[in-house]
Amino acid sequence: MSFQDSGGVVSDSLEDLTIDNITSHVIHMSTQIDDARVKHLTTKLIQYLHDYVRDVQLQTDEWEVAWKFLTQVGQTCTPERQEFVLLSDVLGVSALVDAINSKQTAAATESSVLGPFFNEASKVFENGQSITSNEVVGEPMLIRGRILNTAGKGIQDVLVDIWETDGNGFYDMQDPEYNEPDCRGKFVTDHDGRFFLKAVKPVDYPIPNDGPVGQILRLFNRDCRRPAHVHYMITHPEYEKLVTAVYLSESQFILEDPVFGTKKSLVVDCTWTEDEALAKVYQISPFERDIDNETRRGFWLLDRDFVIVQKTSQENRKTFDP
Amino acid sequence: MSFQDSGGVVSDSLEDLTIDNITSHVIHMSTQIDDARVKHLTTKLIQYLHDYVRDVQLQTDEWEVAWKFLTQVGQTCTPERQEFVLLSDVLGVSALVDAINSKQTAAATESSVLGPFFNEASKVFENGQSITSNEVVGEPMLIRGRILNTAGKGIQDVLVDIWETDGNGFYDMQDPEYNEPDCRGKFVTDHDGRFFLKAVKPVDYPIPNDGPVGQILRLFNRDCRRPAHVHYMITHPEYEKLVTAVYLSESQFILEDPVFGTKKSLVVDCTWTEDEALAKVYQISPFERDIDNETRRGFWLLDRDFVIVQKTSQENRKTFDP
Repeated sequence: MSFQDSGGVVSDSLEDLTIDNITSHVIHMSTQIDDARVKHLTTKLIQYLHDYVRDVQLQTDEWEVAWKFLTQVGQTCTPERQEFVLLSDVLGVSALVDAINSKQTAAATESSVLGPFFNEASKVFENGQSITSNEVVGEPMLIRGRILNTAGKGIQDVLVDIWETDGNGFYDMQDPEYNEPDCRGKFVTDHDGRFFLKAVKPVDYPIPNDGPVGQILRLFNRDCRRPAHVHYMITHPEYEKLVTAVYLSESQFILEDPVFGTKKSLVVDCTWTEDEALAKVYQISPFERDIDNETRRGFWLLDRDFVIVQKTSQENRKTFDP
Repeated sequence: MSFQDSGGVVSDSLEDLTIDNITSHVIHMSTQIDDARVKHLTTKLIQYLHDYVRDVQLQTDEWEVAWKFLTQVGQTCTPERQEFVLLSDVLGVSALVDAINSKQTAAATESSVLGPFFNEASKVFENGQSITSNEVVGEPMLIRGRILNTAGKGIQDVLVDIWETDGNGFYDMQDPEYNEPDCRGKFVTDHDGRFFLKAVKPVDYPIPNDGPVGQILRLFNRDCRRPAHVHYMITHPEYEKLVTAVYLSESQFILEDPVFGTKKSLVVDCTWTEDEALAKVYQISPFERDIDNETRRGFWLLDRDFVIVQKTSQENRKTFDP
């Protein structure tokens, strides 16, 4: 037996993988799957991923930066913070997925990105109640509106889930001492499709920028501040779910939303009102504000209706869950 | 003031993002970057990512599966486990990056994937020492070889970092009670380019399959077992770093390596030897083994040389680190 011979053994049936043949091999190995949709998604994913790596001739040190970055993103996630959704948001993927999936007709309200601060733990309130606790900082605002069908008729028993920042620009979940939902709540529309609640006026705020996503926004020289807005998730068994938000027209960040959520039709005026009768009807306490060097008493009003689309009969599309 | 007017305000300068125009907008927003390489990588990344989403018409529930999966991958990572590298491995991305970056000439040894079990904490040994502690299970094996230049001349002072599984198919880092490196070590070649050490014969083993990557291998109906192999990372200031591995020809998984690392030229015979003189030279203790119903005393020998490539003068490529 010669030791010198032992290094050159070749397995004849092993075809070496090269830059050119590896993709079809990996796809072949990975798509022995019955589900046609999963097979399609997997095939295309491997193809696009490999094409990107080949196109940019990804260097080993760049590949290391990539997996270390993705690891950081994953490790920044907590039950209260979804850094991967935020990454998807700032890369415009969430807005694109939203555009692909929105089933609105021209008559319906447009959708907007869900964002990383939706929380299923939100509580149900009676119309007229306040979604803010006593500790919350902010200027009183009345939110009201109607949920309409495409014929303009109010829809009863629609669940309207609303969430927003406080007057300092923070969501409840960003409070290090967070223990229960605040500045968020679910409302059920009355016979006329109406909902109304007390809240605070939301303000422009930075998306969480102390993690890896903040790092790339700085690398990209992009501002991390979103225009002030209120989120709405609108659901009813017979209608398409609508996830949307309305953006306050006064914000200077309307044109450069870091998560690409703003749309013309979703920009609204938040108006100042001193209507005492209205305050009485909605049992809202006016507050004092300086306008042109004069102290005035009133509150903010966000009045916006939403039009949702009835489901078609074949809505039971198979969902994908590996 | 009419409340009914307040919902329809339009910001004239805001152009709505659509499925067709969003990609160029996000690229424009994200590439105000001086570094041309980072700008190129970012532009192409957004383009390929959006093209994939558009091509497969990614559904909202599928997008949710994606970010939840990536979050799991990130949260499975620990200092001892790199699930993103493993994901890159099973999707063939690591092998592709390796193929793009390997600078071998025809005369040089081919590279192979780094894998998730490389550990910088590996210790330096003297030639002839054992990289396995007394507790390690496995059949004694002598590893030896020479590091040569492309002219076939041995190179002195090359650092050869070697790591492998124990005889049960586990890396040291997979032991829940892991506290220091085992079955791995660094050696420095002598004046003739030689290195030699005592180890155990590695066996086929499953890549970690209790996490999200294991989940998708099951979804893909792919086997998670790698052919038995020994890793080598070979470095010298004047030569290109070589990350490679040799795969034992006897393994039944040579043709279906889940991380696509095997190459014809890296398949080797691990030979059984009963040469007592050799055992004495290398101070290795033979063990008893049944061969054809006869008890024989000997040990395994893995004898493999490596050829590395001298660096060219302009090797100070700028590294990418955001």
